[in-house]
Amino acid sequence: MNKLTLVRLGIDTQQEFIVYIHLDCFVCKSEGFKTETQVQISCNNHSIIATLNVVDSDILKINEASLSKSAWGKLNAKEGDKITLSHLKPVTSLKYVRSKIFGNKLEPQELDEIIGDIVSGKYSNVHIASFITACASNNLTVDEIIHLTQSMIKTGKQLQWDYPFVMDKHSVGGIPGNRTTPIVVAIVASAGLVIPKTSSRAITSPAGTADTVETMTSVTLDADQVRRVVEKEGGCMVWGGALGISPADDIIIRVERSLDLDPEVQMIASVLSKKVAAGATHVVIDIPVGPTAKIRSNEEFIKLNEYFNMIGKAVGLHMHVLKTEGIQPMGVGIGPSLEAKDILAVLTNAPNAPIDLKNKSILLASILLEWGNKASPGKGVELATQILENGTAFKKFIRICEAQGGFREPEAAPFTHDIIATYPGQVIEIDNRDLAMVAKLAGAPHDPVAGIEFYAKQGSQVEVNQVLYRIHANSKGALGYALAYAKSMPDIIKVRREIDNG
Amino acid sequence: MNKLTLVRLGIDTQQEFIVYIHLDCFVCKSEGFKTETQVQISCNNHSIIATLNVVDSDILKINEASLSKSAWGKLNAKEGDKITLSHLKPVTSLKYVRSKIFGNKLEPQELDEIIGDIVSGKYSNVHIASFITACASNNLTVDEIIHLTQSMIKTGKQLQWDYPFVMDKHSVGGIPGNRTTPIVVAIVASAGLVIPKTSSRAITSPAGTADTVETMTSVTLDADQVRRVVEKEGGCMVWGGALGISPADDIIIRVERSLDLDPEVQMIASVLSKKVAAGATHVVIDIPVGPTAKIRSNEEFIKLNEYFNMIGKAVGLHMHVLKTEGIQPMGVGIGPSLEAKDILAVLTNAPNAPIDLKNKSILLASILLEWGNKASPGKGVELATQILENGTAFKKFIRICEAQGGFREPEAAPFTHDIIATYPGQVIEIDNRDLAMVAKLAGAPHDPVAGIEFYAKQGSQVEVNQVLYRIHANSKGALGYALAYAKSMPDIIKVRREIDNG
Repeated sequence: MNKLTLVRLGIDTQQEFIVYIHLDCFVCKSEGFKTETQVQISCNNHSIIATLNVVDSDILKINEASLSKSAWGKLNAKEGDKITLSHLKPVTSLKYVRSKIFGNKLEPQELDEIIGDIVSGKYSNVHIASFITACASNNLTVDEIIHLTQSMIKTGKQLQWDYPFVMDKHSVGGIPGNRTTPIVVAIVASAGLVIPKTSSRAITSPAGTADTVETMTSVTLDADQVRRVVEKEGGCMVWGGALGISPADDIIIRVERSLDLDPEVQMIASVLSKKVAAGATHVVIDIPVGPTAKIRSNEEFIKLNEYFNMIGKAVGLHMHVLKTEGIQPMGVGIGPSLEAKDILAVLTNAPNAPIDLKNKSILLASILLEWGNKASPGKGVELATQILENGTAFKKFIRICEAQGGFREPEAAPFTHDIIATYPGQVIEIDNRDLAMVAKLAGAPHDPVAGIEFYAKQGSQVEVNQVLYRIHANSKGALGYALAYAKSMPDIIKVRREIDNG
Repeated sequence: MNKLTLVRLGIDTQQEFIVYIHLDCFVCKSEGFKTETQVQISCNNHSIIATLNVVDSDILKINEASLSKSAWGKLNAKEGDKITLSHLKPVTSLKYVRSKIFGNKLEPQELDEIIGDIVSGKYSNVHIASFITACASNNLTVDEIIHLTQSMIKTGKQLQWDYPFVMDKHSVGGIPGNRTTPIVVAIVASAGLVIPKTSSRAITSPAGTADTVETMTSVTLDADQVRRVVEKEGGCMVWGGALGISPADDIIIRVERSLDLDPEVQMIASVLSKKVAAGATHVVIDIPVGPTAKIRSNEEFIKLNEYFNMIGKAVGLHMHVLKTEGIQPMGVGIGPSLEAKDILAVLTNAPNAPIDLKNKSILLASILLEWGNKASPGKGVELATQILENGTAFKKFIRICEAQGGFREPEAAPFTHDIIATYPGQVIEIDNRDLAMVAKLAGAPHDPVAGIEFYAKQGSQVEVNQVLYRIHANSKGALGYALAYAKSMPDIIKVRREIDNG
């Protein structure tokens, strides 16, 4: 039998599963395995697909094997366990990916097969990158997006609720600091509606809602824990990835992150599949539009609005799509901890609370309050404002955090550097993408404390030496790295020089 | 200083460069490096971009680092050498890849930047997969393909020759066993023309010409060695990858191989950039057309013919594009060693020499002979046949092999299995793709002896128990793997059952 004994090498390759075996190992020889081939590994009744790395030093004996860190967990394996390696069957669904590349329409069962194979780990990152690219741009019809959404729902778990209204919201990214979710959840749950909010981690941005909430409470809850939190408090703020509600999307998003690409089609399927899987009935979608936001023109908004409505309806959701202003970051903070500080400022009605973040949260909450018959038409903003300003929302937020495992204050970064105005003038343009890039180079979202404090709102007057933004980082290396990029892009915040009339 | 001492771990990750460092290493901490980030490594005045894998066991000390096997060579490093790690600048050309995904036209300098960054190792395989996919299908204009071809030429070395005619040929793949090159080179060089033929290794097929020739002589020659061979014998049969004539293409092809994708556009740019880089002036292109060949219809042929002519002319080549029959494998062998045996049979005029391979080689050679004024118009076939049948071509072939480092007989596989006809009838259809898949699962081209002997030509009559094809493999595992696939695809060779009139 081709069994090998597991030993620990402690090599971390993040999500990629690697199996290490010795070049002279009998399995290698008898099965004809070569380095970098994909193989099936079985152990303890679990099975994964991994990439083979062949080793010719004495870190492994010829009857031993090792795994990359994430693979140990997935196989539920420990040192001394035996594993079996076998050949992988050719992945037939890859022919549908090729077919899509050449412009053919994908049938529902073809999308089912592709998504199923992605979820079961049969696609390498290279294959997933090709699938994402082939489906990006305008390459999918509405029918295909509906089927893709349904395939993604089918491969995951689904939460079931016994409430007439199950509320949800989603903001299409692109605007740093657009972190309304915890505020909206707190307001809506305070009013007695159910809002089991699942969020994602960042794809291409410096923080996802899950990353931000995680600086204040635990977001990694399983389905039973989520049910208990929601039944107790009416709302939750958890990471969707831990629930396995759309495992395909979780895998696809990781590759999108390394491509720095978040295509529309994939985004619609991703968002709506997660809403259905979370058991939502009514969903409000916030689409910020601006020259450096994800959605840059009214034409793009109109198309996306139509898609969200058509596809949402096809998968059984009530939809409300909202166009919002997307010319600059929301609030002050960009990055998980810094965004959390803004959220807490709004919830506690602190004097420095960012008014833009507050107003937008109230607007989004008001739609859900009116929809759920908690406020009469036109009275949602009033009710939402009241709930926020009288402290009810903050109390609810703390109670939800406690139900999720306890509240903690977000931490601060050890290293900061200020980018200052070199001449006086008016802020006339902000490049959201480059600003987000600086925050990412500083370490966000992997370092939750890393990011930016942004002090140069559109149209504001700045003086010489005034701080435009402050970079936060967890290491000198990361700070220097972000700074080098910031200095190479002096127009991230464009200031029109004041004409001296003196 | 952030220097680490290199130790050997002997981990083979094929082409991917990996650097291993300890989790508690000061470089990790001070620079904020995380596992799976791309970092720049410098050592001995060489520099590469590698993926970081963090290790938390005692296989590395905290001031040590290790490299995957291919990275040692690229850095010219040995144990005890010191390396420096630094952050990578963001790869700005990726924005052009995203722009292409969204359907925009790429400018010449944008393609230059993309190809330059690919060659200098700044793209991960995931990025390259996305670029390939974005350029596949009909997404590039003729102008863009011309510029892509020129970018690929610019990033590589170029051979220079002082001859009025420098001949070359290329066969667009898709037909297993279509291994005319060594025969054409031998005939054309025998006639006194210059044909410095560079070939590639297999992309998606069970054997490339370079893989096949390598079973008989060395194909890894540098530019000076190629020059000496060509000046002495008039021709060569070498692997283009070793010459660095189109390093971008070599990298792109590796990713295409794992995608099992060889898109037209990339193929045209690849072929023509290599012809220009090899110093060719006159190029004949063989395009087999058939239902399971790469080019499946006359419409596709017409388009490809037009593209080859337009783009070839734009980069300064004389082009002759030939449509050939592509319904079934050429010759008997599929796989490096087995195809080499066919070539030798044709060159030695053996009684069992495959007539289809012989005739096609003569046809291709005849075009070059007439072009180069060695035969009058219409007399090329006669001259080529004469050179082949009187043994001159075989002598030339052996002399070229000797100039390249010596001739050897191709080896044979230790394991074989026959796929037989289960009923009598006529062969009416052959699936070239599935047949190639069986050969690949048997181990070709990595195992040169692996592959198929094919005995069921289109239209031929077969008896019960007659061998349709024979699988060759270097290990029992690989044989079983190929066999399992062959059995799951009984229609690879479709036999129309004989009606019993008795």
